[in-house]
Amino acid sequence: MRIALIGVGLIGGSIGLAARERLDASVTGYDSDGGAVEAARERGVIDRAADTLAEAVSDAEAVFVAVPVGMLPDAVRDVLAAAPADCVVSDVGSTKRAIVAALGEGGRALGGRESQFVGGHPLAGAETSGVEHARADLFEGATWYLTPTSSTSGILYERLHRLLRGIGARPAAIDAETHDTLLATVSHLPHVLANVLVAQAAQTLEAGGERLPATGPSFRDATRVAGAPSAIWTDIYVSNRDAIAARIDDTISRLAEVRDALHDADGARIARWNDGAAEDRRRLLEAQLAGGPLFELRASVPNRPGVVAELALELARAGVNITDMALYPARDMSEGVVAMWIAGEAEAGRAEELVGKLGFPVARA
Amino acid sequence: MRIALIGVGLIGGSIGLAARERLDASVTGYDSDGGAVEAARERGVIDRAADTLAEAVSDAEAVFVAVPVGMLPDAVRDVLAAAPADCVVSDVGSTKRAIVAALGEGGRALGGRESQFVGGHPLAGAETSGVEHARADLFEGATWYLTPTSSTSGILYERLHRLLRGIGARPAAIDAETHDTLLATVSHLPHVLANVLVAQAAQTLEAGGERLPATGPSFRDATRVAGAPSAIWTDIYVSNRDAIAARIDDTISRLAEVRDALHDADGARIARWNDGAAEDRRRLLEAQLAGGPLFELRASVPNRPGVVAELALELARAGVNITDMALYPARDMSEGVVAMWIAGEAEAGRAEELVGKLGFPVARA
Repeated sequence: MRIALIGVGLIGGSIGLAARERLDASVTGYDSDGGAVEAARERGVIDRAADTLAEAVSDAEAVFVAVPVGMLPDAVRDVLAAAPADCVVSDVGSTKRAIVAALGEGGRALGGRESQFVGGHPLAGAETSGVEHARADLFEGATWYLTPTSSTSGILYERLHRLLRGIGARPAAIDAETHDTLLATVSHLPHVLANVLVAQAAQTLEAGGERLPATGPSFRDATRVAGAPSAIWTDIYVSNRDAIAARIDDTISRLAEVRDALHDADGARIARWNDGAAEDRRRLLEAQLAGGPLFELRASVPNRPGVVAELALELARAGVNITDMALYPARDMSEGVVAMWIAGEAEAGRAEELVGKLGFPVARA
Repeated sequence: MRIALIGVGLIGGSIGLAARERLDASVTGYDSDGGAVEAARERGVIDRAADTLAEAVSDAEAVFVAVPVGMLPDAVRDVLAAAPADCVVSDVGSTKRAIVAALGEGGRALGGRESQFVGGHPLAGAETSGVEHARADLFEGATWYLTPTSSTSGILYERLHRLLRGIGARPAAIDAETHDTLLATVSHLPHVLANVLVAQAAQTLEAGGERLPATGPSFRDATRVAGAPSAIWTDIYVSNRDAIAARIDDTISRLAEVRDALHDADGARIARWNDGAAEDRRRLLEAQLAGGPLFELRASVPNRPGVVAELALELARAGVNITDMALYPARDMSEGVVAMWIAGEAEAGRAEELVGKLGFPVARA
């Protein structure tokens, strides 16, 4: 497997290390910062440093564009223009709507090559940056969101899925819009709140003249991500501003309710609210721990762009994740069989039903 | 050392284990839940189970009242009425204004025995509860706030300070009002925000029909304390409601500012805000890591209630913490020497100056 990395920071570098170690891949790297690409070669993150983006991707089978979110649209367009026609191109940006929309709009200009692109976002590596922190096991067990669309090539989607499994990640299909709303809830808002908490505490430190000698574990945990690198996070905040602003408004109204209960010294209401949170936390943990033995389903599907994305997204919407997948195209490429491995018997049953409803013949293997 | 524990849950139990292991103390326990006290004896947390509160404290040199915050005032009054006159009585409640005020008001009825009480609050053990989770090293390195007042006995304060050092904690004097404001910032508000975050995420899980398959590390960290036990936390929220409500209002106005910057897609303003948070976090970490070699100061003080509290609080207000202390009373008990160990040369210098200004002869040892 020939992989090209555009951007060799923490994420790009870790993809390189993992792909070389685990998949015996040949990895070429390009970075607009020449020093970074040289450091990556010395660390063994890449086999070969390219002088230009076009040179890096010229014979690649898979390309990861790992640059700040604001630079993604241009970088991905450049890669699609220069990469071979059977090469899958992905990114690792923390927001997905903007990049997917940018390629959609530019679809005509790209002459159909947008079918080679699958948006991606690994949930890993939030705390550090730079190739010096790259690790081959960074993605071990980590969810890696993928945002296929109706124009996505099924064959290339499956290749990317398999590659990500190979470096230890758990790929999960999701549409770009849902991804960004979800991430506003589970990542961007916690970052905003961490920033607010440290600002308050720093003000207390200053105003009181009182040393702030120790903070509780809850504060340390909640503020670990405060002031994450602006070079990355400004783009994330701006590109997902609508979803984050909506979450902030929701937070404000929930906080106002708590404050009112406190003003009334209403212990019963506070206990109900707190018990509700305990119950919410339990349900969230259960939803995440859900799993079970793997079941294999096989579906026959026509070989046209978007079919695999349709399957993956339909199942994801019903709460069923495809743990692993394989595509077996017919000789004439007119159709193919998709094998899907699903965790949990109930989930597998639901998947079978959903795939059937989409009009595809399906059976347990 | 004879120690009595009123309430043998996680905190009481851990005090018992640590005091038996490290100080070879003899520990008596009482709990309104007879099963809990029996479990504590079986776990080796206490040497002896008492049938009544009065029996437990009758020959104690130090008593820790480790019951929910709402039950503290009555329990502490009962202990003060039954304990020997030279016994120090403390509690481990997460808010301090209410208990200190309750004893102040009831001071007359207590006939001066409030001088035996020192409010306390260890910053440890937030995540679990119950004696089965008790550990001898729970307080190792943990800040343990103490709230002496002008009526506190210096000799008993020093005994408690030494006992806490002995079980691995770092005692730090603070006045009750400042403690509660501080804890609203560094503990209670993070708990409120954790509850809000899980409620939002659970709603997303429900509304979308979309599984929430994975959350970022920032979410996991920020919500670890969501839905903490209502039996403990309702009291904390209610007893510190004014300070928490003020923090919530401050949070709301800071969030509204961020939202406005997002609405304007104002990247420069967002970057400035985020850089500010990074700087705030750096300052907070520095303030907490501040320290250095220990310097010993010796001050001569009159032997009257409140003097040691005055010293400890005056230094705390100037950001100087007393790492360790010892009291050497004169034969006739009219006066004594307080030895104080202070971390950092600058802090020791400041302490020397402050003690001098209070009118006490002081010198480096």
